[in-house]
Amino acid sequence: MPAPDPQDPARCCSYRAVQKRLPILSWLPRYSLAWLQLDLIAGATVGLTVVPQALAYAEVAGLPVQYGLYSSFMGCFVYCFLGTAKDVTLGPTAIMSLLVSSYAFHDPVYAVLLAFLSGCIQLAMGLLRLGFLLDFISCPVIKGFTSAASITISFNQVKNILGLQGIPRQFFLQVYQTLRRIGETRAGDAILGLACLVALTGLGAMKSRLPRAPSVELLSTRVSYRIVWISATARNALVVLFAGLVAYSFQVMGSQPFTLTGKIPQGLPAFQLPLFSEVAPNSTVPFSRMVQDMGDGLAVVPLMGLLETIAIGKAFASQNDYRIDPNQELLAMGVTNVLGSFVSSYPVTGSFGRTAVNAQTGACTPAGGLVTGALVLLSLAYLTSFFYYIPKAALAAVIICAVLPMFDAGIFRTLWRVKRLDLVPLCVTFLLCFWEIQYGIVAGVLVSGVLLLYPIARPPIKVSDRGELLVQPGSSLHFPAIEYLRDTVCGRALAAASSPCSVILDCRHVSSIDYTVVVGLADVLRELRKRGLSLTFRGLQDDVLQALLSAGLEEFQHFTSWQEAEQCGEAEPGSSWALLFPCAERSPLATGCIQ
Amino acid sequence: MPAPDPQDPARCCSYRAVQKRLPILSWLPRYSLAWLQLDLIAGATVGLTVVPQALAYAEVAGLPVQYGLYSSFMGCFVYCFLGTAKDVTLGPTAIMSLLVSSYAFHDPVYAVLLAFLSGCIQLAMGLLRLGFLLDFISCPVIKGFTSAASITISFNQVKNILGLQGIPRQFFLQVYQTLRRIGETRAGDAILGLACLVALTGLGAMKSRLPRAPSVELLSTRVSYRIVWISATARNALVVLFAGLVAYSFQVMGSQPFTLTGKIPQGLPAFQLPLFSEVAPNSTVPFSRMVQDMGDGLAVVPLMGLLETIAIGKAFASQNDYRIDPNQELLAMGVTNVLGSFVSSYPVTGSFGRTAVNAQTGACTPAGGLVTGALVLLSLAYLTSFFYYIPKAALAAVIICAVLPMFDAGIFRTLWRVKRLDLVPLCVTFLLCFWEIQYGIVAGVLVSGVLLLYPIARPPIKVSDRGELLVQPGSSLHFPAIEYLRDTVCGRALAAASSPCSVILDCRHVSSIDYTVVVGLADVLRELRKRGLSLTFRGLQDDVLQALLSAGLEEFQHFTSWQEAEQCGEAEPGSSWALLFPCAERSPLATGCIQ
Repeated sequence: MPAPDPQDPARCCSYRAVQKRLPILSWLPRYSLAWLQLDLIAGATVGLTVVPQALAYAEVAGLPVQYGLYSSFMGCFVYCFLGTAKDVTLGPTAIMSLLVSSYAFHDPVYAVLLAFLSGCIQLAMGLLRLGFLLDFISCPVIKGFTSAASITISFNQVKNILGLQGIPRQFFLQVYQTLRRIGETRAGDAILGLACLVALTGLGAMKSRLPRAPSVELLSTRVSYRIVWISATARNALVVLFAGLVAYSFQVMGSQPFTLTGKIPQGLPAFQLPLFSEVAPNSTVPFSRMVQDMGDGLAVVPLMGLLETIAIGKAFASQNDYRIDPNQELLAMGVTNVLGSFVSSYPVTGSFGRTAVNAQTGACTPAGGLVTGALVLLSLAYLTSFFYYIPKAALAAVIICAVLPMFDAGIFRTLWRVKRLDLVPLCVTFLLCFWEIQYGIVAGVLVSGVLLLYPIARPPIKVSDRGELLVQPGSSLHFPAIEYLRDTVCGRALAAASSPCSVILDCRHVSSIDYTVVVGLADVLRELRKRGLSLTFRGLQDDVLQALLSAGLEEFQHFTSWQEAEQCGEAEPGSSWALLFPCAERSPLATGCIQ
Repeated sequence: MPAPDPQDPARCCSYRAVQKRLPILSWLPRYSLAWLQLDLIAGATVGLTVVPQALAYAEVAGLPVQYGLYSSFMGCFVYCFLGTAKDVTLGPTAIMSLLVSSYAFHDPVYAVLLAFLSGCIQLAMGLLRLGFLLDFISCPVIKGFTSAASITISFNQVKNILGLQGIPRQFFLQVYQTLRRIGETRAGDAILGLACLVALTGLGAMKSRLPRAPSVELLSTRVSYRIVWISATARNALVVLFAGLVAYSFQVMGSQPFTLTGKIPQGLPAFQLPLFSEVAPNSTVPFSRMVQDMGDGLAVVPLMGLLETIAIGKAFASQNDYRIDPNQELLAMGVTNVLGSFVSSYPVTGSFGRTAVNAQTGACTPAGGLVTGALVLLSLAYLTSFFYYIPKAALAAVIICAVLPMFDAGIFRTLWRVKRLDLVPLCVTFLLCFWEIQYGIVAGVLVSGVLLLYPIARPPIKVSDRGELLVQPGSSLHFPAIEYLRDTVCGRALAAASSPCSVILDCRHVSSIDYTVVVGLADVLRELRKRGLSLTFRGLQDDVLQALLSAGLEEFQHFTSWQEAEQCGEAEPGSSWALLFPCAERSPLATGCIQ
């Protein structure tokens, strides 16, 4: 595509629009060799992580192991073109695999169809621009999610470092079983895992202390700087490769002290439409029946995918100081799942662990995904024997070092200082995420929503009783507040010492009301009238007055602000009730009232 | 219980508390013969309606038909003591039966355990006073729900009037199948059904035109007034009885042109604890496994029960001008389900159709439930042969005449006049209720919630560019608004003609912020600084200033309101920016700023 002419606004605009839909266009022209180097290392490191993870997650999903690899490459390619976050990598994840296992009945035909349908739903959401839903995930929820996820994902890898088999997935059971069976630790795995952890921590510390460029210009200094820089940046890939070599040497020598990734079935998946009905030897399950079987999975799977990708994208965007476009992320995810279903992928989403590895290795653009995807394809086609020797303990060390820094202990102290109420969604999210990640996020979002809605449901209402009962809501009235207002007005009116009295509702702070409030006010009017009390409205703004008038309330009495102003010209400034009481002393049925 | 002494406040208070928990105490002392008469008629009418409905709903739930009757009496007895709405009757409903069919696997042991557990959850919600959730169901949602339900429930009975069998439950399929098979109409059912409809409509119209008491004092006039009044009030029971007699006569004569209710298995259920595990001949399913099998049914069933009962209660409370206590309703429903599970009931909730029959027959208190419950028990013990002859078409006519007046066509016009935005939740609820009632209510509540949250997510932001960019949010800032504020500030600052300029954020209307907003403002500060722009805060209220200071933002510049007031003493009143611009013309790094 030729470079756009910046003088031509129409072309510029349309180029902008294309760029918005194809984010690769905004970074590809600026692509540099330095970026390439970092992206290559990051892509390769993620690739070395994703292969064994994919095999493990396919087992969680209850599918043959190769389906994990089939699901691991399309997201990398698509995201390179359509993604707006440099760190996010799409692929199979623990949560999504679990969901697939419950909605696809361990049947690849169902799993692939679920990917196709979820992709279509996500595409539709992206085109309908529903990405604004992201705005309702607050910082404390994201912090709670990332902190809890870093602990659970790290602990999930401890079993690999200890070489323990058959540890359950649920966090609390995992902790219990891991501690109970710690005596069964395999020495080889533990030593290798700890060595990798130490190496990774050391190289990481070295990287953070490394000056930006060597201050002296000697060739030897520059070369050694280069070596240190590369080994610090590529530490994940180096550690995995080195551990693989060690394992291979042991294998050659005839003994194997490590738990290895093991055999991977070879061969690329066919590129074909997903099956829309299942043909079994005895019977055929039609499309409608399959959709019915998947049931609410068709809502849960795409929504959890959205939630996970966007929560992760937002977390890394905030950490690495860039911004994501949620609608574009939705499109990228939708396209990935739809195209993925053509290569027998099950539903995928943003992976927290691999995104952390990617970010921490220093990815500059999503181009690293091409390397990751190519590695997965290569491994499927030829390299399964190569990945055979990767010790699980080394991969576990990589994942732990990637996710553990995401734990932010300081956030609790910060929120205590800045806004204590925000500790509630933080703690709810944090604690529930140990039970199930999705419950934690949903509960956190709901709690934040309740904190937002509380002031709407219980607006401040000032009541003063000086002969007449004066009720002044402190903000606009919306439907969740009307029962509360009704209780306040009727309760106070009936309990007032000087009853029977008249009630004045001062609506100066009420800039809008809705139909439920109008109905509720009509009820209040009727209830008070039954007990011989009158209700007069004061300080009505135009919109509110119009709504009340058009509802045709019986015995609706009000002062317009113009009349009030005229009648109350003698009000003393300084008294907060000054504008009201001179009027309140007249009868509400005086000439100033419109009935 | 002796009458409380009103002079003793302690006793009075405790009596009040007991009265709140046992609402029967507030109406029983005032109970009169006139009420008894109406309650007897209403209770009997509902009883004649519930028996055949219970049998039909048990089939919907996939349980043996007697389980419908087992579920129909406990709610009537419990609600008489604990209920706060005079019209509501608890029992098996179409929606709940459908939910039970999907969560209880057509197994009575599961269904009864589900009732027990749902009851416990509802009791807990009542004791935790979660009834305030009711505040979030707005008037348009309730109107949409009742209008749609009146149409679907009426149409659901058309098949009985036409004598059609095997019509599906889903509304659209039902309409399609009913129209397609209208040729199969059974003449007997159709004639009887239409006759019942005409009779019910005529008697109903007579009732509404009847004067409150006869104006002449002649005995014959009074007697004939009494006869007309009773037949108009008891029209539902009369029509059902009369139709039953007609059907019986035909049966005696050896032919039967009507579809009858048919045979009901006889005998009362045992009073026993629900089974907490299922013992099959070959294997035992333990409690934990049963709970796991029911899964999210344990959330959906109690919540839908709450939603249905409270939506119905609120609808009839508003129509008949009384108020319900949602927490007490929750307790009543919880106790009903727990005690119901002791008599082999499946989960029950408020029934829209029978509540409408009850209200329209003229129930004065929940005492009619005793009659309904007794009728169900009698019918189980002895009267199954009596109910055998009730023609389904007559029952259908009763239900149609009860629910059709709940359709409120005027609400659309009213909302158009009073508040057009409220048409959105109304239409969403109304239309989706034709698909599935529960989806309609949930979607309506969500849409109302979005309308409430929209002003929070997109607060009014006034931007003016006079040398410096002045940004003034019109309300408090909460987390959903921060992306929008960031886009506005950064977008306008970079696009401003006079760039590079400085940006002033006027926070005079911001009375509170949360942690996400603080983080977002720190991002804005950093983003602007990168581009050589400064950001200064003005008019910060104390809480907001405290939050920003304790977050330790880098390069945080602000004026306190005291300093502004001193510096801006010369402001001309009348100009909305008056207080700001005299300050804005100084450098934000002048002595007035605290850094």
